[in-house]
Amino acid sequence: MLTILPVKGLPDITKGDNIGKLIVSRLKGEGESILQGDIVVVSQKIVSKAEGRMVSLKGVKPSPFALEIAKETEKDPRHVEMILRESKKIIRMKNGHLITETRHGFVCANAGIDMSNVGRSGDSVTLLPLDPDKSAGSVRSSIRHQTGQDVPTIITDTFGRAWRIGQVNFAIGVSGLKPIRDYRGSKDMYNSVLHVTEIAIADELASAAELVMNKADKVPVAIVRGYRFRKGNGTGRELIRPEEFDLFR
Amino acid sequence: MLTILPVKGLPDITKGDNIGKLIVSRLKGEGESILQGDIVVVSQKIVSKAEGRMVSLKGVKPSPFALEIAKETEKDPRHVEMILRESKKIIRMKNGHLITETRHGFVCANAGIDMSNVGRSGDSVTLLPLDPDKSAGSVRSSIRHQTGQDVPTIITDTFGRAWRIGQVNFAIGVSGLKPIRDYRGSKDMYNSVLHVTEIAIADELASAAELVMNKADKVPVAIVRGYRFRKGNGTGRELIRPEEFDLFR
Repeated sequence: MLTILPVKGLPDITKGDNIGKLIVSRLKGEGESILQGDIVVVSQKIVSKAEGRMVSLKGVKPSPFALEIAKETEKDPRHVEMILRESKKIIRMKNGHLITETRHGFVCANAGIDMSNVGRSGDSVTLLPLDPDKSAGSVRSSIRHQTGQDVPTIITDTFGRAWRIGQVNFAIGVSGLKPIRDYRGSKDMYNSVLHVTEIAIADELASAAELVMNKADKVPVAIVRGYRFRKGNGTGRELIRPEEFDLFR
Repeated sequence: MLTILPVKGLPDITKGDNIGKLIVSRLKGEGESILQGDIVVVSQKIVSKAEGRMVSLKGVKPSPFALEIAKETEKDPRHVEMILRESKKIIRMKNGHLITETRHGFVCANAGIDMSNVGRSGDSVTLLPLDPDKSAGSVRSSIRHQTGQDVPTIITDTFGRAWRIGQVNFAIGVSGLKPIRDYRGSKDMYNSVLHVTEIAIADELASAAELVMNKADKVPVAIVRGYRFRKGNGTGRELIRPEEFDLFR
Protein backbone atom coordinates (compact mmCIF):
# COMPACT_ATOMS: atom_id res chain seq x y z
CA MET A 1 0.00 0.00 0.00
CA LEU A 2 1.13 3.46 -0.91
CA THR A 3 0.20 6.59 1.01
CA ILE A 4 0.53 10.17 -0.13
CA LEU A 5 0.44 12.86 2.52
CA PRO A 6 -0.05 16.51 1.63
CA VAL A 7 2.13 18.90 3.61
CA LYS A 8 -0.24 21.78 4.29
CA GLY A 9 0.21 25.17 5.85
CA LEU A 10 3.73 26.02 4.75
CA PRO A 11 4.36 29.75 5.01
CA ASP A 12 4.76 31.95 1.95
CA ILE A 13 8.25 31.12 0.71
CA THR A 14 10.75 33.91 0.16
CA LYS A 15 14.36 34.06 -0.94
CA GLY A 16 16.73 32.29 1.37
CA ASP A 17 14.13 30.08 3.07
CA ASN A 18 15.26 26.58 4.01
CA ILE A 19 12.56 24.39 2.50
CA GLY A 20 13.73 21.14 4.11
CA LYS A 21 13.58 22.74 7.53
CA LEU A 22 10.14 24.23 6.89
CA ILE A 23 8.81 20.82 5.75
CA VAL A 24 10.08 19.08 8.87
CA SER A 25 8.65 21.74 11.14
CA ARG A 26 5.24 21.71 9.40
CA LEU A 27 5.06 17.92 9.68
CA LYS A 28 5.86 18.20 13.38
CA GLY A 29 3.01 20.68 13.75
CA GLU A 30 0.68 18.02 12.33
CA GLY A 31 2.03 15.29 14.60
CA GLU A 32 3.81 13.71 11.64
CA SER A 33 7.42 13.09 10.81
CA ILE A 34 9.66 11.93 8.00
CA LEU A 35 10.07 8.15 8.11
CA GLN A 36 12.63 5.87 6.55
CA GLY A 37 11.52 4.99 3.02
CA ASP A 38 9.56 8.20 2.48
CA ILE A 39 9.98 10.18 -0.72
CA VAL A 40 9.65 13.95 -0.53
CA VAL A 41 8.09 15.67 -3.53
CA VAL A 42 8.42 19.45 -3.80
CA SER A 43 6.81 21.74 -6.33
CA GLN A 44 9.24 23.85 -8.37
CA LYS A 45 7.44 27.05 -7.53
CA ILE A 46 8.53 27.23 -3.90
CA VAL A 47 12.04 26.03 -4.75
CA SER A 48 12.43 28.82 -7.28
CA LYS A 49 11.17 31.35 -4.74
CA ALA A 50 13.57 30.12 -2.05
CA GLU A 51 16.41 30.30 -4.57
CA GLY A 52 15.50 33.82 -5.62
CA ARG A 53 14.63 32.76 -9.18
CA MET A 54 12.06 35.51 -9.57
CA VAL A 55 12.25 38.35 -12.00
CA SER A 56 10.19 41.49 -12.09
CA LEU A 57 9.11 42.08 -15.66
CA LYS A 58 9.34 45.82 -15.03
CA GLY A 59 13.10 45.71 -15.47
CA VAL A 60 13.14 43.46 -18.54
CA LYS A 61 13.98 44.96 -21.94
CA PRO A 62 12.83 42.73 -24.79
CA SER A 63 15.26 42.26 -27.68
CA PRO A 64 14.08 42.89 -31.26
CA PHE A 65 13.81 39.11 -31.72
CA ALA A 66 11.68 38.79 -28.56
CA LEU A 67 9.43 41.58 -29.84
CA GLU A 68 8.97 39.66 -33.09
CA ILE A 69 8.13 36.39 -31.32
CA ALA A 70 5.82 38.21 -28.93
CA LYS A 71 3.87 39.64 -31.85
CA GLU A 72 3.54 36.25 -33.47
CA THR A 73 2.48 34.46 -30.25
CA GLU A 74 0.49 37.34 -28.74
CA LYS A 75 2.46 37.21 -25.51
CA ASP A 76 3.93 39.91 -23.29
CA PRO A 77 7.27 40.79 -24.97
CA ARG A 78 9.03 40.88 -21.59
CA HIS A 79 7.72 37.38 -20.84
CA VAL A 80 9.02 36.23 -24.22
CA GLU A 81 12.39 37.85 -23.52
CA MET A 82 12.71 35.82 -20.30
CA ILE A 83 11.58 32.63 -22.09
CA LEU A 84 14.30 33.13 -24.73
CA ARG A 85 16.94 33.84 -22.09
CA GLU A 86 16.11 30.52 -20.40
CA SER A 87 16.05 28.52 -23.65
CA LYS A 88 18.53 26.85 -25.98
CA LYS A 89 16.12 26.39 -28.83
CA ILE A 90 12.57 27.09 -30.04
CA ILE A 91 10.89 23.74 -30.71
CA ARG A 92 7.45 24.92 -31.89
CA MET A 93 5.67 28.21 -32.20
CA LYS A 94 2.05 28.09 -33.23
CA ASN A 95 -1.49 29.03 -32.15
CA GLY A 96 -0.12 31.28 -29.42
CA HIS A 97 2.06 28.52 -27.98
CA LEU A 98 5.80 28.82 -27.56
CA ILE A 99 7.46 25.47 -26.87
CA THR A 100 11.16 25.68 -26.21
CA GLU A 101 13.99 23.53 -24.99
CA THR A 102 15.28 24.98 -21.73
CA ARG A 103 18.96 25.27 -20.90
CA HIS A 104 18.51 22.11 -18.77
CA GLY A 105 17.09 20.26 -21.79
CA PHE A 106 13.40 20.17 -20.80
CA VAL A 107 10.96 20.61 -23.66
CA CYS A 108 8.00 22.59 -22.37
CA ALA A 109 5.79 25.62 -22.93
CA ASN A 110 7.33 29.02 -22.10
CA ALA A 111 10.56 27.47 -20.77
CA GLY A 112 8.59 26.66 -17.63
CA ILE A 113 8.20 30.35 -16.82
CA ASP A 114 4.93 30.75 -15.08
CA MET A 115 2.98 33.95 -14.63
CA SER A 116 0.60 32.75 -11.90
CA ASN A 117 1.04 32.34 -8.16
CA VAL A 118 4.18 34.46 -8.09
CA GLY A 119 3.17 37.40 -5.96
CA ARG A 120 0.70 40.13 -5.45
CA SER A 121 2.31 42.58 -7.82
CA GLY A 122 1.27 40.59 -10.89
CA ASP A 123 4.24 41.54 -13.01
CA SER A 124 6.87 39.13 -11.73
CA VAL A 125 7.60 35.65 -13.00
CA THR A 126 9.34 32.60 -11.56
CA LEU A 127 12.04 30.84 -13.54
CA LEU A 128 12.84 27.16 -13.14
CA PRO A 129 15.65 26.42 -10.68
CA LEU A 130 19.08 26.68 -12.31
CA ASP A 131 19.99 23.14 -11.28
CA PRO A 132 16.92 21.20 -10.10
CA ASP A 133 19.00 18.14 -9.11
CA LYS A 134 21.04 20.35 -6.85
CA SER A 135 17.83 21.87 -5.43
CA ALA A 136 16.56 18.34 -4.71
CA GLY A 137 19.89 17.49 -3.10
CA SER A 138 19.81 20.45 -0.80
CA VAL A 139 16.24 19.80 0.40
CA ARG A 140 17.29 16.20 0.99
CA SER A 141 20.39 17.11 2.93
CA SER A 142 18.56 19.65 5.02
CA ILE A 143 15.93 17.03 5.94
CA ARG A 144 18.70 14.58 6.80
CA HIS A 145 20.30 17.22 8.96
CA GLN A 146 17.01 17.88 10.78
CA THR A 147 15.76 14.32 11.20
CA GLY A 148 18.61 11.89 10.60
CA GLN A 149 16.54 10.34 7.78
CA ASP A 150 18.05 10.24 4.32
CA VAL A 151 15.03 10.34 2.00
CA PRO A 152 14.95 10.74 -1.77
CA THR A 153 13.68 14.09 -2.95
CA ILE A 154 12.03 15.07 -6.22
CA ILE A 155 11.44 18.59 -7.58
CA THR A 156 8.44 18.77 -9.90
CA ASP A 157 6.71 21.00 -12.38
CA THR A 158 3.52 20.60 -14.40
CA PHE A 159 4.20 20.32 -18.13
CA GLY A 160 1.97 19.78 -21.13
CA ARG A 161 2.44 16.78 -23.41
CA ALA A 162 2.41 16.14 -27.12
CA TRP A 163 -0.84 14.53 -28.36
CA ARG A 164 -2.68 14.75 -25.05
CA ILE A 165 -4.80 17.38 -23.37
CA GLY A 166 -3.90 18.68 -19.95
CA GLN A 167 -0.74 19.02 -17.96
CA VAL A 168 0.71 16.47 -15.57
CA ASN A 169 3.39 16.79 -12.93
CA PHE A 170 6.87 15.72 -14.05
CA ALA A 171 10.13 15.26 -12.15
CA ILE A 172 12.63 17.96 -13.09
CA GLY A 173 15.14 17.33 -10.30
CA VAL A 174 15.96 14.12 -8.44
CA SER A 175 18.21 13.23 -5.55
CA GLY A 176 18.68 9.85 -3.86
CA LEU A 177 16.76 7.57 -6.19
CA LYS A 178 16.97 6.09 -9.67
CA PRO A 179 14.28 7.89 -11.70
CA ILE A 180 13.87 5.06 -14.21
CA ARG A 181 12.86 1.54 -13.31
CA ASP A 182 14.36 -0.77 -15.88
CA TYR A 183 12.51 -3.99 -16.59
CA ARG A 184 14.61 -4.85 -19.61
CA GLY A 185 15.85 -8.41 -19.36
CA SER A 186 13.56 -9.26 -16.43
CA LYS A 187 10.99 -12.01 -16.83
CA ASP A 188 7.26 -11.44 -17.05
CA MET A 189 4.70 -13.70 -15.39
CA TYR A 190 5.00 -16.25 -18.21
CA ASN A 191 8.79 -16.28 -17.95
CA SER A 192 9.14 -14.42 -21.24
CA VAL A 193 11.71 -11.67 -21.25
CA LEU A 194 10.13 -8.20 -21.05
CA HIS A 195 11.83 -6.49 -23.93
CA VAL A 196 11.65 -2.76 -23.87
CA THR A 197 10.02 -1.63 -20.69
CA GLU A 198 11.56 1.20 -18.77
CA ILE A 199 9.16 2.98 -16.43
CA ALA A 200 9.77 6.63 -15.54
CA ILE A 201 8.90 6.15 -11.89
CA ALA A 202 10.08 9.62 -10.85
CA ASP A 203 7.52 11.12 -13.24
CA GLU A 204 4.85 8.77 -11.88
CA LEU A 205 5.76 9.77 -8.31
CA ALA A 206 5.49 13.42 -9.35
CA SER A 207 2.05 12.81 -10.87
CA ALA A 208 0.89 10.87 -7.82
CA ALA A 209 2.01 13.72 -5.54
CA GLU A 210 0.18 16.30 -7.65
CA LEU A 211 -3.11 14.60 -6.77
CA VAL A 212 -2.77 15.94 -3.21
CA MET A 213 -0.98 19.18 -4.13
CA ASN A 214 -3.87 20.76 -5.94
CA LYS A 215 -2.52 23.85 -7.67
CA ALA A 216 -4.65 26.50 -6.05
CA ASP A 217 -4.65 25.13 -2.50
CA LYS A 218 -1.22 26.04 -1.19
CA VAL A 219 0.07 22.46 -0.94
CA PRO A 220 3.48 22.59 -2.60
CA VAL A 221 4.89 19.49 -0.87
CA ALA A 222 3.79 15.87 -0.55
CA ILE A 223 5.30 12.82 1.11
CA VAL A 224 5.00 9.48 -0.70
CA ARG A 225 5.15 6.65 1.81
CA GLY A 226 5.46 2.94 1.11
CA TYR A 227 7.00 2.92 -2.36
CA ARG A 228 9.85 0.47 -2.75
CA PHE A 229 12.40 2.41 -4.75
CA ARG A 230 15.96 1.76 -5.75
CA LYS A 231 18.35 4.06 -3.97
CA GLY A 232 21.09 5.53 -6.05
CA ASN A 233 22.60 8.66 -7.42
CA GLY A 234 19.86 9.35 -9.93
CA THR A 235 19.39 12.67 -11.67
CA GLY A 236 16.49 14.36 -13.41
CA ARG A 237 18.63 14.49 -16.57
CA GLU A 238 18.17 10.72 -17.00
CA LEU A 239 14.54 11.49 -17.85
CA ILE A 240 15.46 13.71 -20.78
CA ARG A 241 15.64 11.93 -24.13
CA PRO A 242 18.76 13.04 -25.97
CA GLU A 243 17.86 14.90 -29.16
CA GLU A 244 19.53 12.31 -31.42
CA PHE A 245 17.18 9.60 -30.10
CA ASP A 246 14.09 11.80 -30.05
CA LEU A 247 11.59 11.42 -32.86
CA PHE A 248 9.73 14.64 -32.03
CA ARG A 249 12.30 17.41 -32.06
CA MET B 1 -4.33 11.84 2.42
CA LEU B 2 -4.43 9.50 -0.52
CA THR B 3 -3.89 5.76 -0.36
CA ILE B 4 -3.33 3.35 -3.20
CA LEU B 5 -4.09 -0.31 -2.62
CA PRO B 6 -2.75 -2.98 -4.95
CA VAL B 7 -5.25 -5.74 -5.74
CA LYS B 8 -3.08 -8.83 -5.67
CA GLY B 9 -3.70 -12.43 -6.50
CA LEU B 10 -6.18 -12.10 -9.34
CA PRO B 11 -6.35 -15.30 -11.38
CA ASP B 12 -5.03 -15.52 -14.91
CA ILE B 13 -7.66 -13.69 -16.96
CA THR B 14 -9.22 -15.42 -19.93
CA LYS B 15 -11.87 -14.48 -22.46
CA GLY B 16 -15.26 -13.86 -20.90
CA ASP B 17 -14.03 -13.24 -17.36
CA ASN B 18 -15.93 -10.62 -15.37
CA ILE B 19 -13.16 -8.36 -14.11
CA GLY B 20 -15.36 -6.31 -11.78
CA LYS B 21 -16.57 -9.47 -10.07
CA LEU B 22 -13.04 -10.83 -9.74
CA ILE B 23 -11.82 -7.56 -8.19
CA VAL B 24 -14.59 -7.54 -5.60
CA SER B 25 -13.99 -11.15 -4.70
CA ARG B 26 -10.19 -10.70 -4.39
CA LEU B 27 -10.68 -7.67 -2.14
CA LYS B 28 -13.03 -9.72 0.02
CA GLY B 29 -10.32 -12.38 0.28
CA GLU B 30 -8.00 -9.72 1.70
CA GLY B 31 -10.59 -8.41 4.16
CA GLU B 32 -11.03 -5.30 2.04
CA SER B 33 -13.93 -3.85 0.12
CA ILE B 34 -14.81 -1.10 -2.31
CA LEU B 35 -15.75 2.07 -0.47
CA GLN B 36 -17.60 5.16 -1.59
CA GLY B 37 -15.16 7.59 -3.19
CA ASP B 38 -12.74 4.89 -4.34
CA ILE B 39 -11.39 4.94 -7.88
CA VAL B 40 -10.68 1.61 -9.56
CA VAL B 41 -7.71 1.52 -11.94
CA VAL B 42 -7.36 -1.48 -14.23
CA SER B 43 -4.49 -2.32 -16.53
CA GLN B 44 -5.41 -2.70 -20.20
CA LYS B 45 -3.76 -6.10 -20.45
CA ILE B 46 -6.36 -7.98 -18.40
CA VAL B 47 -9.22 -6.04 -19.98
CA SER B 48 -8.03 -7.03 -23.44
CA LYS B 49 -7.73 -10.65 -22.36
CA ALA B 50 -11.22 -10.68 -20.85
CA GLU B 51 -12.58 -9.15 -24.05
CA GLY B 52 -10.81 -11.69 -26.23
CA ARG B 53 -8.59 -9.07 -27.85
CA MET B 54 -5.76 -11.52 -28.42
CA VAL B 55 -4.45 -12.64 -31.76
CA SER B 56 -2.15 -15.51 -32.52
CA LEU B 57 0.48 -14.30 -34.94
CA LYS B 58 0.49 -17.76 -36.52
CA GLY B 59 -2.64 -16.93 -38.47
CA VAL B 60 -1.61 -13.41 -39.54
CA LYS B 61 -0.60 -12.81 -43.18
CA PRO B 62 1.39 -9.59 -43.58
CA SER B 63 0.49 -7.37 -46.52
CA PRO B 64 3.22 -6.20 -48.92
CA PHE B 65 3.17 -2.80 -47.16
CA ALA B 66 3.58 -4.47 -43.75
CA LEU B 67 6.53 -6.47 -45.11
CA GLU B 68 8.15 -3.22 -46.25
CA ILE B 69 7.64 -1.49 -42.90
CA ALA B 70 8.84 -4.59 -41.08
CA LYS B 71 12.07 -4.55 -43.05
CA GLU B 72 12.63 -0.89 -42.29
CA THR B 73 11.87 -1.19 -38.57
CA GLU B 74 13.33 -4.68 -38.08
CA LYS B 75 10.12 -5.97 -36.55
CA ASP B 76 8.19 -9.21 -36.99
CA PRO B 77 6.11 -8.62 -40.18
CA ARG B 78 3.06 -10.22 -38.57
CA HIS B 79 3.38 -7.84 -35.61
CA VAL B 80 3.62 -4.93 -38.05
CA GLU B 81 0.56 -6.21 -39.90
CA MET B 82 -1.45 -6.13 -36.66
CA ILE B 83 -0.10 -2.66 -35.79
CA LEU B 84 -1.24 -1.34 -39.17
CA ARG B 85 -4.67 -2.95 -38.83
CA GLU B 86 -5.14 -1.14 -35.50
CA SER B 87 -3.89 2.22 -36.80
CA LYS B 88 -5.24 5.18 -38.76
CA LYS B 89 -1.89 6.73 -39.49
CA ILE B 90 1.87 6.29 -39.12
CA ILE B 91 3.20 9.23 -37.11
CA ARG B 92 6.93 8.39 -37.00
CA MET B 93 9.09 5.52 -38.15
CA LYS B 94 12.75 5.68 -37.22
CA ASN B 95 15.49 3.85 -35.30
CA GLY B 96 13.36 0.70 -35.12
CA HIS B 97 10.41 2.59 -33.62
CA LEU B 98 6.96 2.62 -35.14
CA ILE B 99 4.74 5.32 -33.65
CA THR B 100 1.19 5.30 -34.96
CA GLU B 101 -2.16 6.85 -34.24
CA THR B 102 -4.56 4.11 -33.21
CA ARG B 103 -8.14 3.93 -34.41
CA HIS B 104 -9.13 5.43 -31.04
CA GLY B 105 -6.76 8.37 -31.61
CA PHE B 106 -3.98 7.43 -29.17
CA VAL B 107 -0.47 8.22 -30.39
CA CYS B 108 1.81 5.47 -29.14
CA ALA B 109 4.43 2.91 -30.13
CA ASN B 110 3.18 -0.17 -31.99
CA ALA B 111 -0.48 0.87 -31.70
CA GLY B 112 -0.27 -0.34 -28.10
CA ILE B 113 0.21 -3.93 -29.27
CA ASP B 114 2.36 -5.61 -26.73
CA MET B 115 4.31 -8.80 -27.19
CA SER B 116 5.01 -9.51 -23.50
CA ASN B 117 2.84 -11.05 -20.78
CA VAL B 118 0.37 -12.45 -23.28
CA GLY B 119 0.70 -16.18 -22.78
CA ARG B 120 3.03 -19.10 -22.73
CA SER B 121 2.98 -19.70 -26.44
CA GLY B 122 5.05 -16.62 -27.18
CA ASP B 123 3.48 -15.88 -30.55
CA SER B 124 0.29 -14.15 -29.55
CA VAL B 125 -0.27 -10.46 -28.96
CA THR B 126 -2.86 -8.39 -27.12
CA LEU B 127 -4.59 -5.52 -28.87
CA LEU B 128 -5.99 -2.52 -27.02
CA PRO B 129 -9.68 -2.80 -26.11
CA LEU B 130 -11.94 -1.71 -28.98
CA ASP B 131 -13.69 0.87 -26.80
CA PRO B 132 -11.77 1.48 -23.54
CA ASP B 133 -14.46 3.82 -22.18
CA LYS B 134 -16.99 1.04 -22.62
CA SER B 135 -14.59 -1.39 -20.92
CA ALA B 136 -14.27 1.04 -17.99
CA GLY B 137 -18.05 1.36 -17.88
CA SER B 138 -18.61 -2.35 -17.72
CA VAL B 139 -16.11 -2.90 -14.89
CA ARG B 140 -17.79 -0.02 -13.07
CA SER B 141 -21.28 -1.39 -13.55
CA SER B 142 -20.24 -4.87 -12.52
CA ILE B 143 -18.70 -3.49 -9.30
CA ARG B 144 -21.87 -1.49 -8.65
CA HIS B 145 -23.90 -4.64 -9.19
CA GLN B 146 -21.73 -6.59 -6.72
CA THR B 147 -21.30 -3.98 -4.00
CA GLY B 148 -23.87 -1.22 -4.45
CA GLN B 149 -20.98 1.28 -4.76
CA ASP B 150 -20.77 3.37 -7.90
CA VAL B 151 -17.05 4.08 -8.28
CA PRO B 152 -15.22 5.70 -11.19
CA THR B 153 -13.11 3.31 -13.21
CA ILE B 154 -10.05 3.96 -15.35
CA ILE B 155 -8.43 1.62 -17.89
CA THR B 156 -4.72 2.27 -18.32
CA ASP B 157 -1.76 1.44 -20.49
CA THR B 158 1.90 2.39 -20.31
CA PHE B 159 2.94 4.66 -23.18
CA GLY B 160 6.18 6.37 -24.07
CA ARG B 161 6.40 10.15 -24.37
CA ALA B 162 8.00 12.62 -26.71
CA TRP B 163 11.22 14.18 -25.31
CA ARG B 164 11.38 12.04 -22.20
CA ILE B 165 12.86 8.65 -21.39
CA GLY B 166 10.69 5.90 -19.97
CA GLN B 167 7.06 5.00 -20.16
CA VAL B 168 4.34 6.09 -17.75
CA ASN B 169 0.84 4.82 -17.21
CA PHE B 170 -1.88 6.80 -19.04
CA ALA B 171 -5.67 6.63 -18.88
CA ILE B 172 -7.10 5.17 -22.09
CA GLY B 173 -10.65 4.60 -20.87
CA VAL B 174 -12.63 6.44 -18.23
CA SER B 175 -16.05 5.99 -16.67
CA GLY B 176 -17.69 8.03 -13.92
CA LEU B 177 -15.26 10.92 -13.56
CA LYS B 178 -14.07 14.01 -15.40
CA PRO B 179 -10.54 13.18 -16.61
CA ILE B 180 -9.44 16.82 -16.75
CA ARG B 181 -9.43 19.19 -13.83
CA ASP B 182 -9.92 22.65 -15.16
CA TYR B 183 -8.40 25.51 -13.17
CA ARG B 184 -9.02 28.07 -15.86
CA GLY B 185 -10.71 31.10 -14.37
CA SER B 186 -10.15 29.98 -10.78
CA LYS B 187 -8.07 32.15 -8.49
CA ASP B 188 -4.60 31.30 -7.23
CA MET B 189 -3.40 32.01 -3.70
CA TYR B 190 -2.78 35.67 -4.57
CA ASN B 191 -6.24 36.05 -6.07
CA SER B 192 -4.82 36.25 -9.58
CA VAL B 193 -6.67 34.28 -12.18
CA LEU B 194 -4.88 31.03 -13.12
CA HIS B 195 -4.87 31.34 -16.87
CA VAL B 196 -4.22 28.13 -18.69
CA THR B 197 -4.04 25.30 -16.25
CA GLU B 198 -5.88 22.11 -17.03
CA ILE B 199 -4.55 19.08 -15.16
CA ALA B 200 -5.00 15.62 -16.68
CA ILE B 201 -5.94 14.00 -13.40
CA ALA B 202 -6.98 10.69 -14.99
CA ASP B 203 -3.44 10.33 -16.34
CA GLU B 204 -2.03 11.24 -12.93
CA LEU B 205 -4.30 8.68 -11.27
CA ALA B 206 -3.09 6.10 -13.80
CA SER B 207 0.54 6.93 -13.04
CA ALA B 208 -0.09 6.83 -9.30
CA ALA B 209 -1.70 3.39 -9.62
CA GLU B 210 1.21 2.05 -11.67
CA LEU B 211 3.48 2.58 -8.67
CA VAL B 212 1.76 -0.34 -6.93
CA MET B 213 1.05 -2.34 -10.09
CA ASN B 214 4.62 -3.13 -10.93
CA LYS B 215 4.62 -4.66 -14.39
CA ALA B 216 6.12 -8.04 -13.63
CA ASP B 217 4.35 -8.73 -10.33
CA LYS B 218 0.85 -9.71 -11.39
CA VAL B 219 -0.88 -6.63 -9.96
CA PRO B 220 -3.12 -5.42 -12.77
CA VAL B 221 -5.56 -3.52 -10.53
CA ALA B 222 -5.24 -0.78 -7.93
CA ILE B 223 -7.72 1.14 -5.83
CA VAL B 224 -7.11 4.85 -5.26
CA ARG B 225 -8.75 5.96 -2.03
CA GLY B 226 -9.22 9.49 -0.75
CA TYR B 227 -9.02 11.51 -3.96
CA ARG B 228 -11.68 14.18 -4.28
CA PHE B 229 -12.78 13.91 -7.88
CA ARG B 230 -15.55 15.47 -9.88
CA LYS B 231 -18.14 12.93 -10.85
CA GLY B 232 -19.43 13.12 -14.34
CA ASN B 233 -19.69 11.43 -17.66
CA GLY B 234 -16.06 11.76 -18.60
CA THR B 235 -14.41 9.82 -21.38
CA GLY B 236 -10.82 8.91 -22.21
CA ARG B 237 -11.28 10.72 -25.52
CA GLU B 238 -11.20 14.06 -23.68
CA LEU B 239 -7.50 13.37 -23.04
CA ILE B 240 -6.69 13.15 -26.74
CA ARG B 241 -5.58 16.41 -28.32
CA PRO B 242 -7.36 16.85 -31.64
CA GLU B 243 -4.87 16.82 -34.52
CA GLU B 244 -5.68 20.37 -35.57
CA PHE B 245 -4.57 21.68 -32.14
CA ASP B 246 -1.57 19.39 -31.85
CA LEU B 247 1.87 20.82 -32.58
CA PHE B 248 3.57 17.44 -32.81
CA ARG B 249 1.69 15.47 -35.43
